[in-house]
Amino acid sequence: MKKLIVLLFLLFGSIYIYAQKIPYKVIFDLTSKDPANHQAVLRQARSIIESRPDAKLEVAIYSEGIEMVCKEKSAFVKDIEELINEKKVAFKVCGYTLKRKNMDESQLIPGVKVVPDAIYEIISRQKEGWGYIKVAQ
Amino acid sequence: MKKLIVLLFLLFGSIYIYAQKIPYKVIFDLTSKDPANHQAVLRQARSIIESRPDAKLEVAIYSEGIEMVCKEKSAFVKDIEELINEKKVAFKVCGYTLKRKNMDESQLIPGVKVVPDAIYEIISRQKEGWGYIKVAQ
Amino acid sequence: MKKLIVLLFLLFGSIYIYAQKIPYKVIFDLTSKDPANHQAVLRQARSIIESRPDAKLEVAIYSEGIEMVCKEKSAFVKDIEELINEKKVAFKVCGYTLKRKNMDESQLIPGVKVVPDAIYEIISRQKEGWGYIKVAQ
Repeated sequence: MKKLIVLLFLLFGSIYIYAQKIPYKVIFDLTSKDPANHQAVLRQARSIIESRPDAKLEVAIYSEGIEMVCKEKSAFVKDIEELINEKKVAFKVCGYTLKRKNMDESQLIPGVKVVPDAIYEIISRQKEGWGYIKVAQ
Repeated sequence: MKKLIVLLFLLFGSIYIYAQKIPYKVIFDLTSKDPANHQAVLRQARSIIESRPDAKLEVAIYSEGIEMVCKEKSAFVKDIEELINEKKVAFKVCGYTLKRKNMDESQLIPGVKVVPDAIYEIISRQKEGWGYIKVAQ
Repeated sequence: MKKLIVLLFLLFGSIYIYAQKIPYKVIFDLTSKDPANHQAVLRQARSIIESRPDAKLEVAIYSEGIEMVCKEKSAFVKDIEELINEKKVAFKVCGYTLKRKNMDESQLIPGVKVVPDAIYEIISRQKEGWGYIKVAQ
């Protein structure tokens, strides 16, 4: 019985400690074609990784958001390339959206990843305990 | 003590297995009157149930979103009726919004359900572990 | 072994009971400068605290949402002051946004609080089990 109590203490103790230090993990949900929204999420990501170098950030892009990561259409190619090169922020585009828009990976800014389904990517991260932020104004 | 260890293994083993197979459960939050948003969520729901027949989906509709499920105002009556008839997607409208807009259930597309409070419906699903997607552009 | 089973029953029993009564805790995410969105979240907060006096509500304000809580710019100074005075809804503004907009606390409606980082405030609440609602149309 003593060992049991010790075990349960360790278990709940570790849950308690965990709760004290909430890690900075966020998945951003971007479906807007408005460059003001693209700029906002890039500014927020930059600000977070500067103040919290341990942060893990992802931007899930689908629906009309896809222009943000298109080589030819994005107003923020440089900012996105820099964040990708620093390996601090992952940009993940929805495969369904690409297909629906008759686009392929070669049209994306290099380093942007394709996931089969951006919504499943988002809900999987939520389930894993990541924070969720919808980018919209 | 052996039995205890076996029990704890079973407990954490099952948590682990659970984490490996993240179920496809999503509540969509729709407050927009823009038909582009209505179309987007309907297209996403259709795409999900085709690729993942085990998915559970709900669309919580409140505030200015209510036009999407109004018989007289929706641009997508047929699509919504089909999704309801296939019993794959639940459409739940906020009772507070109905009241505020001086509307009643008879004005809704048949099969659309009324919940007392759409925000409470959403946070309850979140608490139950469903994914959350805000529909907005 | 008996004691163990009792303990595990108590543990899972309490988790079960907890799941039955989902508390009304919500963090609203507001980044819009559109007064229609300000009005919507204030109306929703008012409605919730009237029907559920036990509710805990927070509005996290950042990016272009900041005008909502500016003394000089908000269209809803009275409504916000009332909610603050009733101690039912906390309004928390992002310190990064204030700095970026060259604003200081004296320009805010009295009682509005400043947090260092609104996104971290939001994901911390999510991690604590609060519901999350993005305010957008």
